[in-house]
Amino acid sequence: MEKAAIYHQPCSAYAYPYDKDTLHLRIRTKKDDILSVSVIYGDPFESVKNGNGEYKWVSSENKMVKIIQTSLHDYWFIEIRPPFHRLQYGFILKGLNGETAFYGDRGFFSAEKGAYDTPENYFKFPFIHDVDRFKAPDWVKSTVWYQIFPERFANGDPPISPDHVLPWGSKDPGRDDFFGGDLQGIIDHLDYLQDLGIGGIYLNPIFAAPTNHKYDTLDYFSIDPHFGDKETFRKLVQESHKRGIRIMLDAVFNHIGSQSAQWQDVVKNGKNSAYKDWFHIRSYPVSEGKNGNFEGKTTLSYDTFAFTPKMPKLNTANPEVQKYLLDIATYWIREFDIDGWRLDVANEVDHAFWRKFHTAVLAEKQDVYIVGEIWHNAWNWLRGDEFHSVMNYPLTQSIIDYFIEDHISAAQAVSALNEHLMNEPQPVNEVSFNLLDSHDTARILTKAKGDKQKVKQALLFLFSWTGSPCVYYGTEIGMDGGNDPLCRKCMIWDEKGQDQDMLAFTRKLIGLRKKFQLVLTYGSVDWPIVDDQKNTLCLRKTYEGKALIFIFNHSSKVQHVTLSDYKISFVNVWTGESFTSGTVSVSSMQFIVLETDL
Amino acid sequence: MEKAAIYHQPCSAYAYPYDKDTLHLRIRTKKDDILSVSVIYGDPFESVKNGNGEYKWVSSENKMVKIIQTSLHDYWFIEIRPPFHRLQYGFILKGLNGETAFYGDRGFFSAEKGAYDTPENYFKFPFIHDVDRFKAPDWVKSTVWYQIFPERFANGDPPISPDHVLPWGSKDPGRDDFFGGDLQGIIDHLDYLQDLGIGGIYLNPIFAAPTNHKYDTLDYFSIDPHFGDKETFRKLVQESHKRGIRIMLDAVFNHIGSQSAQWQDVVKNGKNSAYKDWFHIRSYPVSEGKNGNFEGKTTLSYDTFAFTPKMPKLNTANPEVQKYLLDIATYWIREFDIDGWRLDVANEVDHAFWRKFHTAVLAEKQDVYIVGEIWHNAWNWLRGDEFHSVMNYPLTQSIIDYFIEDHISAAQAVSALNEHLMNEPQPVNEVSFNLLDSHDTARILTKAKGDKQKVKQALLFLFSWTGSPCVYYGTEIGMDGGNDPLCRKCMIWDEKGQDQDMLAFTRKLIGLRKKFQLVLTYGSVDWPIVDDQKNTLCLRKTYEGKALIFIFNHSSKVQHVTLSDYKISFVNVWTGESFTSGTVSVSSMQFIVLETDL
Repeated sequence: MEKAAIYHQPCSAYAYPYDKDTLHLRIRTKKDDILSVSVIYGDPFESVKNGNGEYKWVSSENKMVKIIQTSLHDYWFIEIRPPFHRLQYGFILKGLNGETAFYGDRGFFSAEKGAYDTPENYFKFPFIHDVDRFKAPDWVKSTVWYQIFPERFANGDPPISPDHVLPWGSKDPGRDDFFGGDLQGIIDHLDYLQDLGIGGIYLNPIFAAPTNHKYDTLDYFSIDPHFGDKETFRKLVQESHKRGIRIMLDAVFNHIGSQSAQWQDVVKNGKNSAYKDWFHIRSYPVSEGKNGNFEGKTTLSYDTFAFTPKMPKLNTANPEVQKYLLDIATYWIREFDIDGWRLDVANEVDHAFWRKFHTAVLAEKQDVYIVGEIWHNAWNWLRGDEFHSVMNYPLTQSIIDYFIEDHISAAQAVSALNEHLMNEPQPVNEVSFNLLDSHDTARILTKAKGDKQKVKQALLFLFSWTGSPCVYYGTEIGMDGGNDPLCRKCMIWDEKGQDQDMLAFTRKLIGLRKKFQLVLTYGSVDWPIVDDQKNTLCLRKTYEGKALIFIFNHSSKVQHVTLSDYKISFVNVWTGESFTSGTVSVSSMQFIVLETDL
Repeated sequence: MEKAAIYHQPCSAYAYPYDKDTLHLRIRTKKDDILSVSVIYGDPFESVKNGNGEYKWVSSENKMVKIIQTSLHDYWFIEIRPPFHRLQYGFILKGLNGETAFYGDRGFFSAEKGAYDTPENYFKFPFIHDVDRFKAPDWVKSTVWYQIFPERFANGDPPISPDHVLPWGSKDPGRDDFFGGDLQGIIDHLDYLQDLGIGGIYLNPIFAAPTNHKYDTLDYFSIDPHFGDKETFRKLVQESHKRGIRIMLDAVFNHIGSQSAQWQDVVKNGKNSAYKDWFHIRSYPVSEGKNGNFEGKTTLSYDTFAFTPKMPKLNTANPEVQKYLLDIATYWIREFDIDGWRLDVANEVDHAFWRKFHTAVLAEKQDVYIVGEIWHNAWNWLRGDEFHSVMNYPLTQSIIDYFIEDHISAAQAVSALNEHLMNEPQPVNEVSFNLLDSHDTARILTKAKGDKQKVKQALLFLFSWTGSPCVYYGTEIGMDGGNDPLCRKCMIWDEKGQDQDMLAFTRKLIGLRKKFQLVLTYGSVDWPIVDDQKNTLCLRKTYEGKALIFIFNHSSKVQHVTLSDYKISFVNVWTGESFTSGTVSVSSMQFIVLETDL
């Protein structure tokens, strides 16, 4: 038994409350090394007197289920509902080599009686407190998102466009171009989005700022005048809500724009500025010219986002800054009834601030969705008191690696995808903000070098996966574009320029997502077929006696796939066709979605 | 290379800020499986243009040091000071089998160029925020603690003793006996404690409560009348402070006594009580008789500590309860200037409450020490925003397993002790509250079956270890006693009844601790000798060019120990003797403490 590879940690993705009464336990072992794992558990304090008058701990023993395998590990799972909300537990592992071991808070013991009888040898989940549990808004689970970069979606109010605005879609965007997109443009197309089936819009920043992307905020309390005004925004929220569409705004709280009144005051007054403690200043006078790499050595006179002098970093440990930012966070909820905040560069802002943000925002409206922009493993922000999700770029990358760029095999893809599921507790996975591309990446069609079938497979996979999928504006009509600024082209509204097939496909996907929302959100994940030879994958989601089966043929040939577990009837939910046989044929680069009772 | 055993997690004991500018990185690998580990690191955003006009990430590569080995794992360490407070890093592991692998946020890659060039493959420590960092009061590091169970330390004011008080030390304590110990008794012996070298007193509860242990609080705003009054307590704090002794009180916030006004109101008024939401009530009327195990099934009409009906559990998610408890926490600091809070059953109270507690208490006085009563791995309470330490019973158990009960070999002891160090970040270890026994365990001399040499070895080890040692009252004079209530005997003040040899030993230990405080607190740990045959251990603490060496001969024979690294002069700090040879002899069950320059 490879004990060195066994891992469990209480109060983590390995032991967490699923709801107010239920604990989930997971344990990781080396792949194909362990025959079975069971858990001995009970209330730490419950004992009964036995025949000899001795008190004996009241415990149960149950087998865990091997739910997930990666290229290195097996993951085992059990759900327990401790009647008094307290749990003491230890694992009994039986190795394929015949060895049996007890594993608990004090490590490994050979499976002798003694180890079981010592309470200190057990792990503890001391008490399930509802207040400490990760909770997210339920509505997120049934929401398909649509991301809009406002300057490029639609120009609904030409008179407020900036000077030197370029004709809509007249060229590929340069870094500093303006095309006149605005909030009225979005309002004008809400019916389009409703018809598509969208349930939430994530808007890139809309507050007053000089650039087209508006990540260099001038004033968080104003709508950018080229986008509209507060009345336009109010109308956008109201009209969206009427159509069952929620609105998530982008909060850029890591830094502010260098043209903001606060930073300009520091530029002007230096050490004497009332705002000097709003920033991380290393030397005076602050000067954009002093930040940068000079003769191979990088120097800063003040901290910035990356090394961008126009984005001075805010000191979020300063109570004045906290008050300022929390006022902003609650203002747009209170006054305009927004439904979510996406937090820019969230990983570089302190946790203490985000906890205050979480508290303030949810006190204002209890079902606001909070999504941090974090590209890496973000377990430490997803513990229940900061964010509900991060932008799930690690998932993006795994989907691209397999479905788009053919970097990895089917088996490697399954390993990576499984690992993502195990990195977080299930309640976090259920509301994950999942995406294929964004304003910060090349568009998926460009990554696929124009291969539409690849994009369709990737989209279908995104929609099949646990969490909320987000469509970047224009993906549904086949827009392409490389890295920023090319991924920010003007939306194509001329139907002749739109890929109508992709639009119909997207509509169908969204319909599928809605029809099967429960199994897609709560369904357990397994992979009946992972075939590197055939380059074919089959993902199964199972929930309450129903299974949804996604078969992806990612090869250049037709593949015949036998679902040996399913000698029963199933329905191709894409075509409506019924089957009674367990074998289906899938054309090259095609997919099939099947529904069945178990 | 056993990749399945390799573990690293950002924002954990594997990657944490040591101070406001310094990060510590650790990585765990299978024991004796890896030849070397190096880390590639740099600011995630810093790049320079190379000759071809391409931007290239500015990174460094440094070797990590294998600092710790356990029976299953090797731990590797490096300290990094990122100039812009941001770090991107990945590991390069060379296996003893010749294999080389890159390990980062997306798992393992074979050590090809590609893996190094992809930023997403690296781990991130996005920004070192001082506000998020674990910080503890510095004074703790030079403090030797002394735990007093007030009812049994000294009776300084007989008129306030309870009725039916028993003559001091007249019998072994029963569960409900009173002997009349009080606060004046402690004041009377402060000179004794000062002379011993004590720097802090941890007092078991002193607030009004019916029992002798006072864990069933009646009123948190009153000193128990049998212990004294507020003026006595004020004098105790003032007289202690005059002698350089700090005072830590015991806060019992998980539950309240059933005789408290709040619970009695619920007993009387049921659902109509203003206090009904102060508790976790399952059914009305609440009744002590309804809690318990009936016919093999445990039922509760309200949640309690364990299944103790006299200790109804407080609902710390209720803002009224929070206000009540936080008022108590700050009152005793503000009005009486106490220096620490020990938190009873801390693991069963919610984290959200403890964060508020931390904030409120430190706002009142910034260097208060907060110690949770948690017996198990407590990583989740030691992240910087809840406790500074827990009562380190896992360390206690390892010391007892080897030095007292001979359950484990020298090698097993070293493995367990090393593991404790790696379970927490170094700043946590530096202020750990370390103990051999307490009011909740049998006394160490009794665990040692009266073997004084064992107790001396265990005490010396406790004092050698990273963290603050605590002496349970009476240990210094050789008191014994089994589990509660026998571990709560009356302190022996008659010198003829005291073990004067043990007292002199303890005094010497405390002197040693003070003389070598820096190396004992900050010194790195290694084990030049771990000899199961000779049953001999050698612990070395090294800091700034000096080493302190503790040799424990735990065998029944004299052992000759060669310190091969030390062909230099050293001093026996216990006897003052100087050596120039690298070999020393240690008698059976004895120890030697050596000092040397490196």
